Amino acid sequence: MTLEEGAINSKLQELGTGWQRQGKHLILRETFGNFVDAMAFAQAITPLAEDQGHHPDLEIGWGRCTVLLTTHDDGGLTEKDFTLAKAIDRIR
Amino acid sequence: MTLEEGAINSKLQELGTGWQRQGKHLILRETFGNFVDAMAFAQAITPLAEDQGHHPDLEIGWGRCTVLLTTHDDGGLTEKDFTLAKAIDRIR
Repeated sequence: MTLEEGAINSKLQELGTGWQRQGKHLILRETFGNFVDAMAFAQAITPLAEDQGHHPDLEIGWGRCTVLLTTHDDGGLTEKDFTLAKAIDRIR
Repeated sequence: MTLEEGAINSKLQELGTGWQRQGKHLILRETFGNFVDAMAFAQAITPLAEDQGHHPDLEIGWGRCTVLLTTHDDGGLTEKDFTLAKAIDRIR
């Protein structure tokens, strides 16, 4: 079930710095000093996603990893997205 | 130094199935049965990129990893892109 606007805005305040809401997505753009560190961040997200049965889209390049969260099945942002975002915050 | 059109088309024939040329990029869209396998493919590309000092952009999601190659410094496709593409073919 997708969250209402008020809930989304409230939950955004609970997330770490850098998370942005763009339409149906939560987006985090992290930067790194090289490719390996960007990939390591992506790799560290993998067990969190597996644990939660909810998976991000990741865009990785030299010195950057962008995390995009949405709940495709529900067509927008749900509790699942914020739960995964909080787990990701703990490994940043 | 970017490659001429004739050279690009010729080199494309030498790559494995699935590689497409889109403008200034070589693109490979691989699919997998889950998120972990898609991430493992991305992870396996990392040492190849490090060895060559040339890095792809990767888009990873549940069951998919898209590889995008270009030589940003030269503004298009170069030998570096095809060399990395061939190395990636060897781990597919």
